[in-house]
Amino acid sequence: MNELCHDRCSSRLRQWATVSETSEKEQTSVPIRNDLSTPDAVRAACRSEELTTQTSGLAPGFAQANLVILPRGDADEFRRFCELNPKPCPLLEVTEPGEVSLPRLAKKADLRSDLPMYRVWRNGQLTDEITNISTLWQNDFVSFLIGCSFTFEAALIEAGIPVRHVELGCNVPMFRTNIDCESAGKFRGPLVVSMRPLNASDTSRAVQITSQFPDVHGAPIHIGAPEEIGIKDLQSPDFGDAVPVAPGEQPVFWACGVTPQAALEAAKPSFAITHSPGCMFVSDLKDVSLRRTPQR
Amino acid sequence: MNELCHDRCSSRLRQWATVSETSEKEQTSVPIRNDLSTPDAVRAACRSEELTTQTSGLAPGFAQANLVILPRGDADEFRRFCELNPKPCPLLEVTEPGEVSLPRLAKKADLRSDLPMYRVWRNGQLTDEITNISTLWQNDFVSFLIGCSFTFEAALIEAGIPVRHVELGCNVPMFRTNIDCESAGKFRGPLVVSMRPLNASDTSRAVQITSQFPDVHGAPIHIGAPEEIGIKDLQSPDFGDAVPVAPGEQPVFWACGVTPQAALEAAKPSFAITHSPGCMFVSDLKDVSLRRTPQR
Repeated sequence: MNELCHDRCSSRLRQWATVSETSEKEQTSVPIRNDLSTPDAVRAACRSEELTTQTSGLAPGFAQANLVILPRGDADEFRRFCELNPKPCPLLEVTEPGEVSLPRLAKKADLRSDLPMYRVWRNGQLTDEITNISTLWQNDFVSFLIGCSFTFEAALIEAGIPVRHVELGCNVPMFRTNIDCESAGKFRGPLVVSMRPLNASDTSRAVQITSQFPDVHGAPIHIGAPEEIGIKDLQSPDFGDAVPVAPGEQPVFWACGVTPQAALEAAKPSFAITHSPGCMFVSDLKDVSLRRTPQR
Repeated sequence: MNELCHDRCSSRLRQWATVSETSEKEQTSVPIRNDLSTPDAVRAACRSEELTTQTSGLAPGFAQANLVILPRGDADEFRRFCELNPKPCPLLEVTEPGEVSLPRLAKKADLRSDLPMYRVWRNGQLTDEITNISTLWQNDFVSFLIGCSFTFEAALIEAGIPVRHVELGCNVPMFRTNIDCESAGKFRGPLVVSMRPLNASDTSRAVQITSQFPDVHGAPIHIGAPEEIGIKDLQSPDFGDAVPVAPGEQPVFWACGVTPQAALEAAKPSFAITHSPGCMFVSDLKDVSLRRTPQR
């Protein structure tokens, strides 16, 4: 999946650098994404395994969510981890054990099939990446749906602020930082951030806009100076795809819902399932429903 | 005035760079500023001409204001200029012609004596810099009190975000930009900005905090990349004092209430009076009264 995604990103990156009519070319090369304008359509495409890559830019206007599934025995400790780290882990929903639907987030959904790609973790090791987890499902699984920064991207774009990885049709670049999360029992680890390059005149408005979405990571945690948070090379993200940072732009970092995956590596629970980075659950929640009163 | 201020700033700059206990030394060298903790005291010190320099950091918690005084004949056009450019020119008060008190902004004040230093403009040329304008006063003078970014500095400091020129006890650096204001009749000119260096982890919060003060310039208009707004050398401000930008910090730019002075130069009204840059009217308004509902 990552290779596929990376190939597509690289080719679009060339387009971005050389031509302006990128969108037309994209439509020719990735036809399926044209139809994925509603949450239902995205979830159906996941279910039928037509869509197995990242969901950024799909079903515009609808909130996407990170997923963590744990057996009941680990769920309470993980919930505490999320509560202690609300910037990277804003909880949109925690299911009852065994529940596969999400009535508060989507009219019709099955957590076992409706994401493009899942990661399976055993003892903190990533052991598999698969498109359907039905055969692995257990009745004591508790699912955590965690807000995703894709939600505020629509608001940025609507305000005329370009989002580079959406322009390129690739996954957002994500990085482990040297900032430690608050730990909860065995769950601990570094804050993971997503990065969007912004120019000097857009950065302030981007902070204002994303501040209005506290349930999907809210305002940036860091602007510029990547080395200060332990990021050595912006072109080598730990998750997702590299995107170019143009002269006059600065990297802007938001807390990221992939943070729990780093905590799983440290906690080493016997079993866990997550989404693959960028391959989110697309909900029926409108992005605007997660927006707080805007400021002047 | 500027030389005095600059000397003090330079010596504090050395202190800032070499020692940490700056504040104690400051108190020894500039005793008068210790007592200037209330608006009344600041205005009295202006009236007695004990205070003839910039007011940043004085009467903490109270709003300060930029001043423009014009004869009635030019006042309507200038008011329109302010209304068209609310980021640099947020109007806190416009007086009736000839009025020298400001009952909405201060219980007891006289606009002719209660600022540390005034600038007198004839045909768009700065012709004089004086501490009292009583002898120049005319009964048709209309005074414009314009919000000042000093107001949000207290909120920044309270949030643990250091403000460099306050630490140094000098004036904020201000720059003409290549951004044109909206013009109103003869009033036109470049946007003037104030600059505060911030580190990468404070910048986002500083945007959030200053967004809460739309009547005192609000959020930054530009973050990083000074050359993009026509600023060639951060160490050569057009107004105020230079402050150092440390490695890992970026210059953050806010619309500034000195913008009208640039418009006066272009409009060349036969007569005008303003405050000297940084030498503000200190009001009885609490800074917090200008704060809108905070966001998470």
